[in-house]
Amino acid sequence: MAPVYRLTLEYDGADFEGWQSQPSGHRTVQDTLETALARVTGERVRVTGSGRTDAGVHAEGQVASVRLTSERAPEALCGALNGVLPPDLAVLALEPADEGFDARRRATGKLYRYSIWNGPVRAPLRRRRALCLRRPLDVAAMARAAADLVGHHDFSSFRAAGSNVTTSTRTLRRLDLEGGPPGALELWFEGSGFLRHMVRNLAGTLLEVGSGRRDPGSMPTLLAARERSRAGPTAPAHALTLVSVHYPPPPPGAGPDSLETSRP
Amino acid sequence: MAPVYRLTLEYDGADFEGWQSQPSGHRTVQDTLETALARVTGERVRVTGSGRTDAGVHAEGQVASVRLTSERAPEALCGALNGVLPPDLAVLALEPADEGFDARRRATGKLYRYSIWNGPVRAPLRRRRALCLRRPLDVAAMARAAADLVGHHDFSSFRAAGSNVTTSTRTLRRLDLEGGPPGALELWFEGSGFLRHMVRNLAGTLLEVGSGRRDPGSMPTLLAARERSRAGPTAPAHALTLVSVHYPPPPPGAGPDSLETSRP
Repeated sequence: MAPVYRLTLEYDGADFEGWQSQPSGHRTVQDTLETALARVTGERVRVTGSGRTDAGVHAEGQVASVRLTSERAPEALCGALNGVLPPDLAVLALEPADEGFDARRRATGKLYRYSIWNGPVRAPLRRRRALCLRRPLDVAAMARAAADLVGHHDFSSFRAAGSNVTTSTRTLRRLDLEGGPPGALELWFEGSGFLRHMVRNLAGTLLEVGSGRRDPGSMPTLLAARERSRAGPTAPAHALTLVSVHYPPPPPGAGPDSLETSRP
Repeated sequence: MAPVYRLTLEYDGADFEGWQSQPSGHRTVQDTLETALARVTGERVRVTGSGRTDAGVHAEGQVASVRLTSERAPEALCGALNGVLPPDLAVLALEPADEGFDARRRATGKLYRYSIWNGPVRAPLRRRRALCLRRPLDVAAMARAAADLVGHHDFSSFRAAGSNVTTSTRTLRRLDLEGGPPGALELWFEGSGFLRHMVRNLAGTLLEVGSGRRDPGSMPTLLAARERSRAGPTAPAHALTLVSVHYPPPPPGAGPDSLETSRP
C-alpha cells in the first residue's frame, strides 16, 4: 500500500507568496516543499496542507500530508528534506500516518497567534513579526468584544469577500488577549476551522474596538449582520502565525498512526 | 551653553555595516542617525555611541550622546527623528543630559545577550536572531567554563587580533546561561566594558566547550596565555544583541541629568 506521511512545518512567511501552489515564477511553501520532495525521493507528488496560509503569514506548526510510492525511513527522509529546503522553511517532524490520513480533511482545529507591539515608539527588532501601533489600545474593551465572538457562530461578516465555501458557520473555541513585556500584546485564536481571512478580519475589528472606533458591545449585531462590509479591515499578514493544527488521537493500536503524538 | 542630549536606540543590525561611520556607500547606524539629525535640526553634528557594535549585531538599548547648538524639546525631537529614520532604527528615548555627558566615556557597564537555538532541526523563525546548532550542547560544561571567566582578568586571549587598546584588563561581572523553551539557550554577558570581538570570542570558545572540543576546566590557562590564537572562533554576529548600557546615577539636583532614569 502506498505509504502516507505527516509533516510538521515551520516557515518564515515573509518571502513566500503563501502556502498554495502557483504557476512558476511565484515562490510558495507548497511548491518549495514539493520541489524538495522530488529532489530527495525522485517522486513528483502533491502535498496537502491543513489549510492555505496567506502570503506573509508564518507557521510554527503547519501540518501537511503526502503519499509516496514506497516506504521511507522517516528520520532519514526528514533530514534529507531539511538538507535541501531553503533557510526559511524546515520540516520539524515527519511521521508515518494511517492510509486515510489527509492533513486538511482530518484537522479538527487550529491555533493562531496575532502579535501586536503597542508602544510609544516603533520596535525595529519586532517589526517583521508584529504589528506596531503607537496609540495605546484599550485592551479591556478588546477583551469584552472578544468574549462575544467566542462560540458557534455564522462568521460571514469576517469572511473574505468573494470566498465561496458552502457554510460559514465555525466554532471559535478561544479568543484570548495575552500581555507580555510592556507593549507586547498577543491575540490567540483557536477554533474548529477558519474562513478565508477570518483571523485577520477578527484582529482588524478588535483593533478598531481597542482604538475606540468601534463599540465593544457591538459584536453580536456584527455577527448577526453576516455582511463583510460591516466588520473592520483585514489586519496585516506579517503579524500572524499558525501555531499548531489539531487532529483526533489515533485509535489504540491503529498501526503507524499510533506513532503520532498529540499536539498542544 | 550648547545642550547635550542622550539617546537610547534600538536597531536591527542585519542591514547595517555596524555602528561606526564609514565613507559613503556604506550604511552604518551612526551615519543614518547623523543624517536624520541633520534633516530634522539642520545641524551637521557627530553623535558618540557608547561603543561600536559590529556589522550584523543588534541593539535593544544602545546609548549615544550628541551636542546641538540650540535647545530642543526632547519629545518633539524624538518624534521627528523617528519620523525620518528607516524601519530598522528607532530612538526609544531622548533626554537632556549634563554638559559633560559622553555616552562612551561615561559608560560604566554593558549587557549583551548571545542567542542560540540548539534543536534537532533548524528554526526558520529564529534564524535572523539566533545561531542554530543541531548537535546537542553540554550546557553544564559551558556553565563550568563560564564561571572561571567571570571576574577581573586580562582578556587578551579573547581580543580581536590587531586591536590596540592600552589595556586589555576588564571586569566580567556576569556570564550566565539561561534556557527558555526547549532548544533555546541565551548567554548573558555583563561587564565594565568589552574589547573588540570579546563577547563573540567568549561565545565561540564556550560553544567549543559545549560541543566537547574544549576542556571546561581550561579557562584559567586560556586567560593566562593572553594569546588570541589559543581561544575559539569568533561566533557569528547576527545572534548578538547589545541589551543595555549602564551609567552612574546622576548626583542629586544635578540639573537636566536628573531626568535620566537608571537602566536595569
